[in-house]
Amino acid sequence: MIPRYSRPDMVAIWEPQTRFRIWFEIEAHACDAQAALGVIPKANAEAVWKARDVTFDVARIDEIEAVTKHDVIAFLTHLAEIIGNDEARFVHQGMTSSDVLDTTLNIQLARAADLLLAGLDRVLAALKARAFEHKDTVRIGRSHGIHAEPTTMGLTFARFYAEMARNRARLVNARAEIATGAISGAVGTFANIDPRVEEHVCAQLGLIPEPISTQVIPRDRHAMFFATLGVIASSIENIAIEIRHMQRTEVLEAEEFFSPGQKGSSAMPHKRNPVLTENLTGLARLVRMSVTPALENVALWHERDISHSSVERAIGPDTTITLDFALHRLAGVVEKLVIYPENMLKNMNKFKGLVMSQRVLLALTQAGVSREDSYRLVQRNAMKVWEKGADFKTELLADPEVTAALSPAEIEEKFDLGYHTKHVDTIFARVFG
Amino acid sequence: MIPRYSRPDMVAIWEPQTRFRIWFEIEAHACDAQAALGVIPKANAEAVWKARDVTFDVARIDEIEAVTKHDVIAFLTHLAEIIGNDEARFVHQGMTSSDVLDTTLNIQLARAADLLLAGLDRVLAALKARAFEHKDTVRIGRSHGIHAEPTTMGLTFARFYAEMARNRARLVNARAEIATGAISGAVGTFANIDPRVEEHVCAQLGLIPEPISTQVIPRDRHAMFFATLGVIASSIENIAIEIRHMQRTEVLEAEEFFSPGQKGSSAMPHKRNPVLTENLTGLARLVRMSVTPALENVALWHERDISHSSVERAIGPDTTITLDFALHRLAGVVEKLVIYPENMLKNMNKFKGLVMSQRVLLALTQAGVSREDSYRLVQRNAMKVWEKGADFKTELLADPEVTAALSPAEIEEKFDLGYHTKHVDTIFARVFG
Amino acid sequence: MIPRYSRPDMVAIWEPQTRFRIWFEIEAHACDAQAALGVIPKANAEAVWKARDVTFDVARIDEIEAVTKHDVIAFLTHLAEIIGNDEARFVHQGMTSSDVLDTTLNIQLARAADLLLAGLDRVLAALKARAFEHKDTVRIGRSHGIHAEPTTMGLTFARFYAEMARNRARLVNARAEIATGAISGAVGTFANIDPRVEEHVCAQLGLIPEPISTQVIPRDRHAMFFATLGVIASSIENIAIEIRHMQRTEVLEAEEFFSPGQKGSSAMPHKRNPVLTENLTGLARLVRMSVTPALENVALWHERDISHSSVERAIGPDTTITLDFALHRLAGVVEKLVIYPENMLKNMNKFKGLVMSQRVLLALTQAGVSREDSYRLVQRNAMKVWEKGADFKTELLADPEVTAALSPAEIEEKFDLGYHTKHVDTIFARVFG
Amino acid sequence: MIPRYSRPDMVAIWEPQTRFRIWFEIEAHACDAQAALGVIPKANAEAVWKARDVTFDVARIDEIEAVTKHDVIAFLTHLAEIIGNDEARFVHQGMTSSDVLDTTLNIQLARAADLLLAGLDRVLAALKARAFEHKDTVRIGRSHGIHAEPTTMGLTFARFYAEMARNRARLVNARAEIATGAISGAVGTFANIDPRVEEHVCAQLGLIPEPISTQVIPRDRHAMFFATLGVIASSIENIAIEIRHMQRTEVLEAEEFFSPGQKGSSAMPHKRNPVLTENLTGLARLVRMSVTPALENVALWHERDISHSSVERAIGPDTTITLDFALHRLAGVVEKLVIYPENMLKNMNKFKGLVMSQRVLLALTQAGVSREDSYRLVQRNAMKVWEKGADFKTELLADPEVTAALSPAEIEEKFDLGYHTKHVDTIFARVFG
Repeated sequence: MIPRYSRPDMVAIWEPQTRFRIWFEIEAHACDAQAALGVIPKANAEAVWKARDVTFDVARIDEIEAVTKHDVIAFLTHLAEIIGNDEARFVHQGMTSSDVLDTTLNIQLARAADLLLAGLDRVLAALKARAFEHKDTVRIGRSHGIHAEPTTMGLTFARFYAEMARNRARLVNARAEIATGAISGAVGTFANIDPRVEEHVCAQLGLIPEPISTQVIPRDRHAMFFATLGVIASSIENIAIEIRHMQRTEVLEAEEFFSPGQKGSSAMPHKRNPVLTENLTGLARLVRMSVTPALENVALWHERDISHSSVERAIGPDTTITLDFALHRLAGVVEKLVIYPENMLKNMNKFKGLVMSQRVLLALTQAGVSREDSYRLVQRNAMKVWEKGADFKTELLADPEVTAALSPAEIEEKFDLGYHTKHVDTIFARVFG
Repeated sequence: MIPRYSRPDMVAIWEPQTRFRIWFEIEAHACDAQAALGVIPKANAEAVWKARDVTFDVARIDEIEAVTKHDVIAFLTHLAEIIGNDEARFVHQGMTSSDVLDTTLNIQLARAADLLLAGLDRVLAALKARAFEHKDTVRIGRSHGIHAEPTTMGLTFARFYAEMARNRARLVNARAEIATGAISGAVGTFANIDPRVEEHVCAQLGLIPEPISTQVIPRDRHAMFFATLGVIASSIENIAIEIRHMQRTEVLEAEEFFSPGQKGSSAMPHKRNPVLTENLTGLARLVRMSVTPALENVALWHERDISHSSVERAIGPDTTITLDFALHRLAGVVEKLVIYPENMLKNMNKFKGLVMSQRVLLALTQAGVSREDSYRLVQRNAMKVWEKGADFKTELLADPEVTAALSPAEIEEKFDLGYHTKHVDTIFARVFG
Repeated sequence: MIPRYSRPDMVAIWEPQTRFRIWFEIEAHACDAQAALGVIPKANAEAVWKARDVTFDVARIDEIEAVTKHDVIAFLTHLAEIIGNDEARFVHQGMTSSDVLDTTLNIQLARAADLLLAGLDRVLAALKARAFEHKDTVRIGRSHGIHAEPTTMGLTFARFYAEMARNRARLVNARAEIATGAISGAVGTFANIDPRVEEHVCAQLGLIPEPISTQVIPRDRHAMFFATLGVIASSIENIAIEIRHMQRTEVLEAEEFFSPGQKGSSAMPHKRNPVLTENLTGLARLVRMSVTPALENVALWHERDISHSSVERAIGPDTTITLDFALHRLAGVVEKLVIYPENMLKNMNKFKGLVMSQRVLLALTQAGVSREDSYRLVQRNAMKVWEKGADFKTELLADPEVTAALSPAEIEEKFDLGYHTKHVDTIFARVFG
Repeated sequence: MIPRYSRPDMVAIWEPQTRFRIWFEIEAHACDAQAALGVIPKANAEAVWKARDVTFDVARIDEIEAVTKHDVIAFLTHLAEIIGNDEARFVHQGMTSSDVLDTTLNIQLARAADLLLAGLDRVLAALKARAFEHKDTVRIGRSHGIHAEPTTMGLTFARFYAEMARNRARLVNARAEIATGAISGAVGTFANIDPRVEEHVCAQLGLIPEPISTQVIPRDRHAMFFATLGVIASSIENIAIEIRHMQRTEVLEAEEFFSPGQKGSSAMPHKRNPVLTENLTGLARLVRMSVTPALENVALWHERDISHSSVERAIGPDTTITLDFALHRLAGVVEKLVIYPENMLKNMNKFKGLVMSQRVLLALTQAGVSREDSYRLVQRNAMKVWEKGADFKTELLADPEVTAALSPAEIEEKFDLGYHTKHVDTIFARVFG
């Protein structure tokens, strides 16, 4: 976790105090269930809740762990210090450390997913607002970095919206993947604890009981979770790359917002660099890098080995914190992105009329010229624009082979921008409903 | 694609003939829609269907492509040779190559997903059958590779079943991700073609129209698809690793089926190696390796660049073919896996009674011994078994501190295997309904 | 392996005939060594060489393998058919299949490395030629995609040359990593074969004897090999991205060579797309994706498991074939790249004089203006250029605070391009010696 | 960075104080060089060294950065506070932030590499000591997890030694890759600073001047560096997996050292889990995951974009800290690994004599029995051992077809363990010289 790329809410999920709080809740709910089943005295279960509003002493727990070399035992010892050794004697009965640890990890991931969903919602809102704002702002569409046909800036935002809306749906799925809990004992047989304890604890904590666990909750769930975050990160990169392209000096169709007091570079004060989207490009790589180790974590030996644990200690916080930060940074960039419609028009007209060649080609074909001949006619006039800076329409009007097939009015009509934007509303209706 | 790791049905999806057949269908349906809209003559649309049952001449298409350096043009030229130049003149009108190529890729991936679902179903059937067969076959559960508590072989199969059932649901989602089509033109504006053409073609081909495309269908869809395959592969590895462990000489709780005539090794004729599951471990790595490039494919420049194409030419066929093969290989391994229940018992009793230590610990606690004392008592007797090969129960019965808390009958009861298997039916009900 | 992305020389290395030829040579040399040691009769060793010029019957070997399910045994059986069962009886004596297979793989990888080195040499030659050709072709240097200070096209080529020269050195190291052989028996103890056989075979085949092997040659070597290929691929991507940027419509400082007859797009005949470098970007992803499975292949169980094998069957050929093709494609692109120096100048002057701001800032500081004031002065004039299209030099000359510190002549001097190119020869001397 | 997986020495390299110290040294040496060239006054250069022994006020620098939003400017401002605004006026003259930042990163990585080399040396020393200690400790070699032929524990350690020695050599190469510095200005042309400044600074700091840089040092160097760390991590995993296998209950040929007071599990006190090597398996995944983003960092746009920066902020510290910790943890595990030679013998004899089958097969062939018949004879007796627990030698002596070819003495001789260990000294000489 890099402080400069983190937001407090997400960081809080991964702090020791939060973790111990969740451990406590699991243990306390488990005691309730055990008491209801008559396994332990009700008084002992009730006593546990004395720690309900206590701030756990993280330093003290660390101190105990330094001796016991076991984190859960250290916590339980500290808990007993709070509620009394005698009252605490039935806490954790029949449970295994992993029952607590794995259920806790999933609660943390589910909460992280909730924050990520909020981040996605902010991104979606920003994209939608900018899409409608620039629904009719014409710019050139590009394939291969080369001018193709006109499109609108609104369509660009709309397609990012659609992509992020898909990511939202994926994240909802991914959250469901890891929102399970397990209190099933050392190898998952419930030998020492009734399955109804698991059911109660999960119900209280908003989890689904893991249908079949071993000592651990199966890691294909977490693999799917992190794989989904990797996809979302790639979409962030997708938007970031678009903006970086738009901001490059020769294009300059948009710029990240640049506050008046901000210094761009120590050496080149005129520079306004797209550093936020460049940063997002890097953050996307960081989020994505967790996918492979998460996949490698699936194949644990027999009922569990602990190789996954160190991986998750790192990628659990780091990946969610980084993605959370990236989503909000992206939202901010989109919300405040400075758009230059006039530059968009200027760029589009760089090769006068050339982007209309497809229309002309089509018109020639429809006028009865063979496909091969149409292509040849369009290409030879296009090359004059390309090589000599001629005006495409002028050249076409002067080409007798062209005018033999198309009247001047028909040629003129091919250069109408409205032709290209006529279905924007249809597409918006598909995307925004 | 490695021939020895491929099945014909999946290979067929990726063959040129199949690809051209899908291209043809897209073009023909598009002509129908264009004719219905009055854009092209009905007769021309009908003429296209003359090629309905034709086997396309792949060599001829390659020959044309060598000249035109453009695959779709080469195909259209060949198609015109079949249905007549005049009849063919309206084919592909208003469309862009990518309309055909991207829609085709998604159809291939959707068909591939269908085969993979069939493969998963075979795996699921095998796992379920073996789970019920060995529901009560007791074996030792292991954490960290170390004996923990008893479980059953049926539970092992059942958890793999649950994992693969999750994978099935994920693959259904992933299939939906890529089952879209686009006929939206050079930059996705439908400038030259009515959106209703896309709708008709998609409806005919079982696809959802892509709500908003550029020149291409957005690649976050494909990223999600391949990420999902990567998760499935990791689950295959998970099962493979379990079997490899079970087959190792010192464990020998199961073996891959070894046909009477099969030679294990040229040098060591007694060897029966788990080569199929080792192979599956490697194949899982191959499937997984497509995830990162699929994620890197998402951020295309502006309305498209073609960097994704070479990646997909490789991972499209290779990954689906490998995973398809792996699923069926896995199914075969599970179906025919030779289980050795007697070795399971022998292994469990390697350290006489030690695996029951958790139960004794719990019983001591419940009998009023403090948690720390209970732990100490159990540990000191356990160490005698570990270090001197003593019998755990015998030692406990001879330990006055233990017998002060537990009667001989109570100690005896702790060594009842039924204690560990009492919830197997509950778990099976959760998994298999 | 995708035929369109492959070159015959590299493909040939991975063909069955080549593989069998190498197997034969290993066996034949091993027999020579065994005979020299008196382990087998000299006549039998000599007899093996009867197959020296034979083209092996791949179909026949496949046929035998279908029965024996063992590739090396199938080959040895076929070899016996050629040289006579009696003469062949000592072939492979004391050896293990892996002795043959692993040594063969390394020979193939070493040969592949030789071809890759040749490809790198072609790339290096092209980069060097273009570097000298455009040593003094001024263009704007860009950071963050934003104009920074002038540089030259020659420096761009020179830095790619330096990068590829590093890659060449890395590949030489990587080749040495895998140019080892092992004839050490079932677990690497030489129990059944004298270490001098390994020494002889390796000497004959240009390999170093693996100092200590198990059944296999250790896979950290191959991991390092493929990791190195991944780095080379990333450098290819680096060059490809530069060219794609240069070719985008608004920049147009260079274009991939476009042969007169070539069609760019079926729909937009004016388009000249950087499809080769886009393709290289994708191929780089394909090469890189082999790195992770190669790393995962290192940790084999005990003296070997065969999980690495399927991985290597794929990435051995695929990765080397793809990289080989990519290197030659890249060389071709560089060799024929069309450079537009006039567009470079035009782009540089897009914001008149602004790129000289760093020099002015420095001059102000040196003239005694504080760092903060200098920055402020430069920034306020720069903003006029940026926002109103003013000329930077004109603005500076009209700013009394600036002219209080710098004379008009001093200001003029700051706009001399030669200032920026004065060390080009020094840098070239560093790079090209 | 996870505190529990870190060592203070490596952490210190990445602390702000260290970073600012290096920034200071670069600036101070640069001033010296500038003064020597007559560009700035000698007195100003000397004045900078007033900060030589100062502990920089990190909080103050952060405070300034909060305003300037630029880390290098913040540091320079703070430096001026220390040495005086007037004295500081020539600091950083002609330089770009990246000159400082990139050179600093490389110094940090080089220092990290030195610590990693020390870690490798400790691992090598441990492996060598244990190799000689157990040079003749016989254990069964295994392929596919199945018993193959005898080897020795010393050979296992020796091969890990050889692998780690290769890693050491690779790391020396990787260190050289990144031990370069650049003081070349905004786009690498040395427009504002003489190349001799770079030469002086690099010489003082133990770096090689980067032959050609842009605004940044080329990232193929860093890619190669992290790729090398990934290979080392995979070798750590390789050793960890071996030990985990040796410790599993059924094998128990070795155990991680278990201190008398240590608790293995809260639930199963008899358990001694290989948690350190399982942890190393996970840490290996963490180190490896940096390879892909480091490869993705190579292709920066034009003379630089800053996408690599966030990646390096994470993987720079995290990967070196994790690997450093892992190397020392591994060294500790190897140093204290408890070896059980008696269990090795017991395991080897699990299938009485079966591991000698290869020798018998060879002897039969040499005695004139055909390869096929020999195989058949060995296999049929081997199967009796496998299926009925018979003794292999006894069965052979009772098989008339076998005794027709081999005398009882010849058969007896095949079961001599010395046969398998006779070349151990030869191999040790190869590995340890």
